[in-house]
Amino acid sequence: MTCWVPGAAGSLYDIDNLPYGVFSRPGEEPRVGVRVGDFVVDLAPVAAAEMLDVHHVFQERSLNPLMAEGRLVRESVRRWVTGLLSDETERDLVEPSLVPLADVTLHLPVEVADYVDFYASVDHASNVGRIFRPDQEPLLPNWKHLPVGYHGRAGTVVASGTPIVRPSGQRRGTSGPTVGPSARLDIEAELGFVVGVGSTLGSPVSYAAFADHVFGVVGLNDWSARDIQAWEYVPLGPFLGKSFATSISHWVTPLEALSAAWVPLPDQDPEPLPYLGPGDTQGLDISVEVVVNGSIISRPPYRTMYWSPAQMLAHMTVNGASLRTGDLYGSGTISGPDPDSRGSLLEIGWGDESAFLADGDTVTLRYTAPSASGGRLALGEVVGRVEPSAG
Amino acid sequence: MTCWVPGAAGSLYDIDNLPYGVFSRPGEEPRVGVRVGDFVVDLAPVAAAEMLDVHHVFQERSLNPLMAEGRLVRESVRRWVTGLLSDETERDLVEPSLVPLADVTLHLPVEVADYVDFYASVDHASNVGRIFRPDQEPLLPNWKHLPVGYHGRAGTVVASGTPIVRPSGQRRGTSGPTVGPSARLDIEAELGFVVGVGSTLGSPVSYAAFADHVFGVVGLNDWSARDIQAWEYVPLGPFLGKSFATSISHWVTPLEALSAAWVPLPDQDPEPLPYLGPGDTQGLDISVEVVVNGSIISRPPYRTMYWSPAQMLAHMTVNGASLRTGDLYGSGTISGPDPDSRGSLLEIGWGDESAFLADGDTVTLRYTAPSASGGRLALGEVVGRVEPSAG
Repeated sequence: MTCWVPGAAGSLYDIDNLPYGVFSRPGEEPRVGVRVGDFVVDLAPVAAAEMLDVHHVFQERSLNPLMAEGRLVRESVRRWVTGLLSDETERDLVEPSLVPLADVTLHLPVEVADYVDFYASVDHASNVGRIFRPDQEPLLPNWKHLPVGYHGRAGTVVASGTPIVRPSGQRRGTSGPTVGPSARLDIEAELGFVVGVGSTLGSPVSYAAFADHVFGVVGLNDWSARDIQAWEYVPLGPFLGKSFATSISHWVTPLEALSAAWVPLPDQDPEPLPYLGPGDTQGLDISVEVVVNGSIISRPPYRTMYWSPAQMLAHMTVNGASLRTGDLYGSGTISGPDPDSRGSLLEIGWGDESAFLADGDTVTLRYTAPSASGGRLALGEVVGRVEPSAG
Repeated sequence: MTCWVPGAAGSLYDIDNLPYGVFSRPGEEPRVGVRVGDFVVDLAPVAAAEMLDVHHVFQERSLNPLMAEGRLVRESVRRWVTGLLSDETERDLVEPSLVPLADVTLHLPVEVADYVDFYASVDHASNVGRIFRPDQEPLLPNWKHLPVGYHGRAGTVVASGTPIVRPSGQRRGTSGPTVGPSARLDIEAELGFVVGVGSTLGSPVSYAAFADHVFGVVGLNDWSARDIQAWEYVPLGPFLGKSFATSISHWVTPLEALSAAWVPLPDQDPEPLPYLGPGDTQGLDISVEVVVNGSIISRPPYRTMYWSPAQMLAHMTVNGASLRTGDLYGSGTISGPDPDSRGSLLEIGWGDESAFLADGDTVTLRYTAPSASGGRLALGEVVGRVEPSAG
């Protein structure tokens, strides 16, 4: 199948990618589109013209109504879009709804319900343990038994491109804590998983039901103020050191686009408890680039992550906690075993205070994965520029 | 002013109380009402008849649109309702919209945006420190410098009366962790604060703006599985030990009803940093009763809480995190200094495993406060019955 959209064939946004987002043109309401090449397909008029059952979901301001339709609709909409963009006979219908990316504003694609962040990289957790607790075993006793995670602030999940104001807060001082702008502003390069289909309170969701509940994947930067975090986090975990902003990509890549990216997990030893599906869940071969002010400073490999996306989902619900459309869960910092594959400045700098972000710095996270056609596809990138503290 | 509603005058739901909730009659859509005595006033038809500007907010399924209108509307709606229920000449207009409580179903009153839980009782934090870390100082170094808090799961905040299914999860075992129903199911008697008016990302909210942003107060039970929590919570804090359910009262008591309940805070030493408004914020004289299977087992006094509601709000936003309509923050367990004033079974039992909840147990939290007329008023109660694990 070849895509007739100019410039799309062979690009990172070819017909085997097709992520969803929310866009607007000047003076118009935001609505759902799909990206192909350097265009957005305005799906609402095409779906209405073709009298698609679910055409109304493309007129919404977020992907939530589309995602809530479930896996079968997700798959059939993808087949429909794929047909539109590969069949030359559809070109007259679709071409008027192809909008150049340069002509649109992109918005936060998801109305985020609950946001959970995990800690699923064994290299990241070990590095942080060595840095923060140098006299102890780097991994805590629970780490290899369960995917450690916590809830973050859903209301401050922002779209790529949103400026990041340097947060103020309490930090340890030599004679007691002080309040002021964070001096240790950091990133965490992560992958985010977006829930489309909710579940019932009291009923755990099995790892095997991953693709029935999860719609797709976003790039995610879990901005972190290390000095605020270090002072506040015992015993209830990170709070203000994280809650000022979490950036996600404009594009949500549906699971079907990642069909060629699944890979075996690294060995899990000890074997996880049965509800975590030992041996039955997989990782994702997604390559990440951390770019600061235009220079690539690290290349974290998602395939080295210890806990799988399906295991995180099963763990998050084993206590009966329900899912809602729009729930977002992050993988935690993606760090590989090598020094040039670390996903946070804390690890990259390893004690060098100058490694943290300065006002004016721009951080871009880029993600690529193998595509079904044997090439590569890009996930949405995540960009943020640091602005001076408001205080 | 005397209330003409039968049985209301002199009751705990007299005209100086007037909490808001969401109710429905069989076959009708949920909408906003106000409680007086043992009746709900169906506000929508009365407000429409009187052509109130904001009459539409009473036809909604949650209090969020009413709360979003802000402080002046909150105050003027209260004056309007007070007039309706005290002026005999309004009786003919209002009486057809008085619905006996027994004839309605009450719903979750708020669409919860983000849920944060604090840890603001010095007695609770000290007791937990002594129980979990007997060989260390009970209070951690940060505790008296900032209100320690963390994000909880907004999607599992449920209305009073919702059955609580005993959660399963990982617990420490003698030869490694096991998964199964929690054997240490607990309560935390708390007060919850509901945000009506949001704020802008990047702009802290001052303690002095408390009443401009917070709409009112709910009763809150932060159900806790202590065995799951103890195994998971290092280093990122409580997660599945809490996220299975948080119950709140059907009724949201507006701040104006609590005008006579403000009291000086206990001494804060060391003096908090300026953004926490040392000396300028107050506590609330609210009495709590913890009732298990009909017997009062404890009477926690909210007036002994170390951190004030306005301090928690200022701390939660000092990093620029924005507020949204529907944000909910809990005080943390309310425990007083005496053994009979503790707000969790962990503390009440102090090492006695039989103190935790059995299947079939019903827990009721009741709250009263001084009212403006010199009597007492009740906040909404919080009820939950423990059901056996689904697993």
